[in-house]
Amino acid sequence: MCVLGATGMVGQIYLQMLADHPWFEVSAVTGNTTVGKKLIEAYAGKGDLPRKFWELEVLPSDPSKIDADLVFSCLPTKAARELEHKFAEAGFPVVSDASANRYQEDVPLIVPEINPEHLDAIDVQRKRRGWEGFVVTTPNCTTTAFVLPLKPLLDEFGLRYVNVVTMQAVSGAGYNGVPSMAIMGNIIPYIQGEEEKVEQEPRKILGTYRDGAFRPAEVTIDATCTRVPTLVGHLAAVTATLSREASVEEVAEALEGFRGLPQQLELPTAPPRPVVVREEVDRPQPRLDAGSNDRSGMVVHVGRLRKGSLERTVKFVSLTNNLVRGAAGIAILTAELLKATGRLG
Amino acid sequence: MCVLGATGMVGQIYLQMLADHPWFEVSAVTGNTTVGKKLIEAYAGKGDLPRKFWELEVLPSDPSKIDADLVFSCLPTKAARELEHKFAEAGFPVVSDASANRYQEDVPLIVPEINPEHLDAIDVQRKRRGWEGFVVTTPNCTTTAFVLPLKPLLDEFGLRYVNVVTMQAVSGAGYNGVPSMAIMGNIIPYIQGEEEKVEQEPRKILGTYRDGAFRPAEVTIDATCTRVPTLVGHLAAVTATLSREASVEEVAEALEGFRGLPQQLELPTAPPRPVVVREEVDRPQPRLDAGSNDRSGMVVHVGRLRKGSLERTVKFVSLTNNLVRGAAGIAILTAELLKATGRLG
Amino acid sequence: MCVLGATGMVGQIYLQMLADHPWFEVSAVTGNTTVGKKLIEAYAGKGDLPRKFWELEVLPSDPSKIDADLVFSCLPTKAARELEHKFAEAGFPVVSDASANRYQEDVPLIVPEINPEHLDAIDVQRKRRGWEGFVVTTPNCTTTAFVLPLKPLLDEFGLRYVNVVTMQAVSGAGYNGVPSMAIMGNIIPYIQGEEEKVEQEPRKILGTYRDGAFRPAEVTIDATCTRVPTLVGHLAAVTATLSREASVEEVAEALEGFRGLPQQLELPTAPPRPVVVREEVDRPQPRLDAGSNDRSGMVVHVGRLRKGSLERTVKFVSLTNNLVRGAAGIAILTAELLKATGRLG
Amino acid sequence: MCVLGATGMVGQIYLQMLADHPWFEVSAVTGNTTVGKKLIEAYAGKGDLPRKFWELEVLPSDPSKIDADLVFSCLPTKAARELEHKFAEAGFPVVSDASANRYQEDVPLIVPEINPEHLDAIDVQRKRRGWEGFVVTTPNCTTTAFVLPLKPLLDEFGLRYVNVVTMQAVSGAGYNGVPSMAIMGNIIPYIQGEEEKVEQEPRKILGTYRDGAFRPAEVTIDATCTRVPTLVGHLAAVTATLSREASVEEVAEALEGFRGLPQQLELPTAPPRPVVVREEVDRPQPRLDAGSNDRSGMVVHVGRLRKGSLERTVKFVSLTNNLVRGAAGIAILTAELLKATGRLG
Repeated sequence: MCVLGATGMVGQIYLQMLADHPWFEVSAVTGNTTVGKKLIEAYAGKGDLPRKFWELEVLPSDPSKIDADLVFSCLPTKAARELEHKFAEAGFPVVSDASANRYQEDVPLIVPEINPEHLDAIDVQRKRRGWEGFVVTTPNCTTTAFVLPLKPLLDEFGLRYVNVVTMQAVSGAGYNGVPSMAIMGNIIPYIQGEEEKVEQEPRKILGTYRDGAFRPAEVTIDATCTRVPTLVGHLAAVTATLSREASVEEVAEALEGFRGLPQQLELPTAPPRPVVVREEVDRPQPRLDAGSNDRSGMVVHVGRLRKGSLERTVKFVSLTNNLVRGAAGIAILTAELLKATGRLG
Repeated sequence: MCVLGATGMVGQIYLQMLADHPWFEVSAVTGNTTVGKKLIEAYAGKGDLPRKFWELEVLPSDPSKIDADLVFSCLPTKAARELEHKFAEAGFPVVSDASANRYQEDVPLIVPEINPEHLDAIDVQRKRRGWEGFVVTTPNCTTTAFVLPLKPLLDEFGLRYVNVVTMQAVSGAGYNGVPSMAIMGNIIPYIQGEEEKVEQEPRKILGTYRDGAFRPAEVTIDATCTRVPTLVGHLAAVTATLSREASVEEVAEALEGFRGLPQQLELPTAPPRPVVVREEVDRPQPRLDAGSNDRSGMVVHVGRLRKGSLERTVKFVSLTNNLVRGAAGIAILTAELLKATGRLG
Repeated sequence: MCVLGATGMVGQIYLQMLADHPWFEVSAVTGNTTVGKKLIEAYAGKGDLPRKFWELEVLPSDPSKIDADLVFSCLPTKAARELEHKFAEAGFPVVSDASANRYQEDVPLIVPEINPEHLDAIDVQRKRRGWEGFVVTTPNCTTTAFVLPLKPLLDEFGLRYVNVVTMQAVSGAGYNGVPSMAIMGNIIPYIQGEEEKVEQEPRKILGTYRDGAFRPAEVTIDATCTRVPTLVGHLAAVTATLSREASVEEVAEALEGFRGLPQQLELPTAPPRPVVVREEVDRPQPRLDAGSNDRSGMVVHVGRLRKGSLERTVKFVSLTNNLVRGAAGIAILTAELLKATGRLG
Repeated sequence: MCVLGATGMVGQIYLQMLADHPWFEVSAVTGNTTVGKKLIEAYAGKGDLPRKFWELEVLPSDPSKIDADLVFSCLPTKAARELEHKFAEAGFPVVSDASANRYQEDVPLIVPEINPEHLDAIDVQRKRRGWEGFVVTTPNCTTTAFVLPLKPLLDEFGLRYVNVVTMQAVSGAGYNGVPSMAIMGNIIPYIQGEEEKVEQEPRKILGTYRDGAFRPAEVTIDATCTRVPTLVGHLAAVTATLSREASVEEVAEALEGFRGLPQQLELPTAPPRPVVVREEVDRPQPRLDAGSNDRSGMVVHVGRLRKGSLERTVKFVSLTNNLVRGAAGIAILTAELLKATGRLG
């Protein structure tokens, strides 16, 4: 198994999560400016690389140089656009958390608990493109902060409209993404390209796949995305308009009771409950509740659940670990789902 | 002129803003645990007290001990509840930024640019209560972050509904209000009592005063208030539903063109334009745009103005200096308005 | 076993470290303003209390109300001064990280790896005071940041003089100790009473206990203590003058090779190596290297080891987890040492 | 007058300080990747550029393209090494805060209050190199944090040895220099190349220039340089060994009484007192005392003055505004000194 772009911020989380994975073994890693170096040298000063990967050689992101039965991609957008198709064409199953291919009409955009049936699009994709491999994508890290709780709301009460304001951690922009001069003691009320993704992706994820086509869910989303001085954990303040009136208790029950196929299949990286409702008045908080680089980081914490001022609305805040549930972890869970449903080799 | 509660965080801003005020002279300051000390001793280590006030003696908040023709109150809520009425009864005009009396049916809640006519309630208040003095209040600091831009929207397009998510600076809770252990690298998605104020106050402020009674504006507000690790400047992400469709250009023009009575009267603390629309994609930012402890801190900066996804909606972020426009400055501007309209002595 | 002052910042670390301790079982906890409440209520919003302690009732710090064979004290200084003697008199062995009794002539001040033989003073203490129990103390959290590496330097090269400048985390002052308004984006170059402790304690710890008396080590210490905006981990920049010339390699070897009685006895909380020398040019860093609330937090990390400009001097930085090695962990390790050497019941 | 490298962090401070300068007029600015753009575009999002400079065209750093009677250089080291000589050769007086030429045997390294007589080296420099122009340098920003107070100590008591530990703000590394992921809630105990500069530069600055040669002061310096999460203001904790015993009062008097040639000449950017001794126990603090982008930022604040534990030693902390006294301001003051002493045109 190979991680493309393993030397970055998210690559590091992949490697921590995969170090003791029961199903997947890291056999290759790729980089860009550090090709030829040992992985530990490419990481200098930036984090904690599990000892077992220190000696791995950083390879170029070239399908002909890689021997692997599965490829994770956390490449930057532009590189992902160029390379992921090549890997698929060369026969590799590619699970990507890059945005490059998310919106293509034959590429599934997967949150394993929400839309595992979208994986059926893989067959169409392969046929249409003549590939032996395939590409499956996972959403923007911020989307994962609120799309999981939307699923049970949609299923149980109907969902019309979502207003979401996000407060995103600096790690979401990569290790060098946000200069300290820009963000310390400050808020930047804009993240390039983010609101478009956040307003669009949930519609595909919550939609259906039938007769070879994705049909987006009929929900309208308004997003304002901001960067705040936190390290890990994207917080979203959500106001949702349902199709019918629902009490706070009903909504809490729907959220707490929500389980998906990964929970049924007891996939290794699946948290027992994907959504946890916090009853403390002041939780979730990013520094306390974002979880670690393991299953604990896969839980979306929902708090401050209450009725809105308008009819049929509820308000809550939700928190995602942008590096785990929002990136490496969701890709690994998606790969587990692929394997458990017989789509890997 | 006297500042009640002058030894706190906001008291300090009052004194900086009043040090060279053309109309008002600070003749007395009151405190609680530091009564009898020199003001400079009561301030140790917490900020910059103008030299001319160093030797002022801290007096008790007792009307019989104070000689002043005007009283500013930045007392804590409980003390304000006990003391502000006493001062009014004893003949003092009281301008208060405490929440204690804001919601009483004969007490004006003033944003000078929005509802100067509400000051007419003073006559009724005095008559009804048999006071020689009176109490006038100013809103919660967070309310000021978004109520100013709402006024021109209401006047020009009609206003139905506002969804606001705030990211509030630690100074909003007073010098000792937020422990560093609680907020560094973190977000606290709850501020006790704040959302109620933020949902209620704009209705009174934007409403009318006629025939001796306040009538609230018919606008519904949904608020989520959070604390973030910034020092000064409350940022609000706003989605507003208007009564009719309006283009971004029309809205920008309405906001930029907005002027109130303080601007007409050229009051000393009135900024030339109360609302400034920022065109940069990533402004306003608290650390860069909150302004200083003078007229620059009285400007509300609006940015990221854009249409919402639903009909007749607009979205924007707005920033207030919570200590100046949100507290000391708005009270001083209100006092200037009282004086300019002949209501002080 | 009982924790006095269990509801504070450090109390919380004790409970996390003791939750699965192989030797000690928490049977009672005490508090002050929260007496009578369940422990989970006394903790609201401040951290992670292990589930098994949620229902414990908070007792008053009164020996007659406590049933325990060992007492840990993390009481505030003043309470410690009043209460620790009472507990010792009532027959309890008291291990305290409070400063109240550290400097008394018959009270051991213990760093288990450095001066376990100082525990012999317990007998004298009991006899002189007529106590059934006793009091043993551990040092100020900042002292632990650099006294451990000093021990092998003293033993192998002799030690004359130490210049230490500390950069201390906000947790060192307790949960409410440092307001965010004071420290965010700032440094406070003064901590009340800290430099005196830091200059005095190592002399007692590194000294000898013979013939019923402590004799301080003949080393002179200059300290400057500052507060910086970090959460956990006190960093110390040290320049040490040795009695003889030593190469960086010799010093590194002495530090790395250092082991104490806790390592020999394989005490549960003893880290395999108490001092770890980091070779990366830019480590240790508080956020990356302070370790967790377990044995990993007991390691003192030394980095940037190099020769000084004057003869016989070496320079380094060292990092301690102020809550673990600097407070709860060192007290627990001391208790383990007491037990292993037959001094507990 | 021209600023080379005007589009960076420090370039911005130059322009703010020069906007209303009584002697110097900015006629040209140069950049690298933004050549041809208007200056305001090159600045997007990073700070406050005075309106009068918005329309300036960014020129290449090429002497043949520049028309100016004085050149300030805040180029990056490598560019400075290539370009400053070319400008001097082409006849420009160059005042540089880059490190490239500081240590050359005929280039003065100036702190205007300390060593104005070093400017005599300009004549030798010109003759030896056959230049019409010349290069004068100013020290590393961290050196300025403690070298100014050393001068009166040297003059009045003699100075043997200095131990300095610095806590440096992120702005010292340039706008993009320190990623937020690296420094938020953290300390990095290493800054590449910094300690060498800090140990070497004061010797040249405090030394003499006689008979065409610089003779370094005979003082030994030990430095440990760290990066901390502050925005502006480098703090230094200093222990100094004098040649004779001096009381705290004597030292305070020497520091407070210190004046240099810029004060005598009343140069526009010279602060009335270059060193201010703070008596509050907990000052100076970077966020409160670093001053603004004007003469207030030229003051070095010294606090916590006290005797050391060894004979003839004193301890203090001192604070410099690294962007003003440490970079743009000291260069401007040096240029004022050049002009006032007849060395400019």
